[in-house]
Amino acid sequence: MFCAIVRGEAESSVVYDDDDMLAFMVLQPVTPGHLLIVPKAHAVGLADLDDKAGARMWQVAHRLGRALRHSDLRCEGVDLFLADGAAAFQEIFHVHLHVFPRFAGDSFRIDANWRMRERGELDEAAAAVRRGLSRLDDAQNAHTTQIQ
Amino acid sequence: MFCAIVRGEAESSVVYDDDDMLAFMVLQPVTPGHLLIVPKAHAVGLADLDDKAGARMWQVAHRLGRALRHSDLRCEGVDLFLADGAAAFQEIFHVHLHVFPRFAGDSFRIDANWRMRERGELDEAAAAVRRGLSRLDDAQNAHTTQIQ
Repeated sequence: MFCAIVRGEAESSVVYDDDDMLAFMVLQPVTPGHLLIVPKAHAVGLADLDDKAGARMWQVAHRLGRALRHSDLRCEGVDLFLADGAAAFQEIFHVHLHVFPRFAGDSFRIDANWRMRERGELDEAAAAVRRGLSRLDDAQNAHTTQIQ
Repeated sequence: MFCAIVRGEAESSVVYDDDDMLAFMVLQPVTPGHLLIVPKAHAVGLADLDDKAGARMWQVAHRLGRALRHSDLRCEGVDLFLADGAAAFQEIFHVHLHVFPRFAGDSFRIDANWRMRERGELDEAAAAVRRGLSRLDDAQNAHTTQIQ
């Protein structure tokens, strides 16, 4: 669906367009001004998103987040949200970064079981993430070796 | 508080540390593995965050999001979230990007009044954001002129 928008084959309300990125309004916004930044080169999520395309997507989001504060839309704050995978609430499998204005009394809510954790538990989680980083590096090095 | 962590004066469970960025575990995680990426140079939010620091923060988040999928932590998806301003649920006024693993049955929920909008309404919002972009550019040019 986003590829059709990128190709100009599907209707959209565009706010920003360059060689690599397109930003357009969400059909069912959290608040008026809610937009998505989408890399034009198809990627499903964080795993297959090119590093430079990701950084570029962020830069456009950063600029549009600032622009919302300079607009006449109601904007007392800005949220950025990216969902990678169905379990993370991704619904359209073309990577996209949400940017939406917030104001007192808007309808957006988040909820979770935010209980305080012991330091030992946090240290274990940190060690697990660091091991994940090592495995990621190994996987990427193996991939590079394979390509050469 | 994050400045004290960056200076090593407050306890934290660090997963990543370089000259510009620090990533550490959240005390009250949405799920085990929930972490924050924080630029070491203090910035409150998107408005005063340096462009390059923002892109760097994103790159670390992108890499750590991938690392979570390679870790032994339960991770079927990944969410990235940044809150800019109290109205957007920012609670600590040192800019930070959340990265947390997601899995079926976890406790994280989002809710909003996501009603479908008419194309005319979306086009108006898009025009308002584009005017915000022009004003942002004018403000930044005025600032540059003032500095010279």
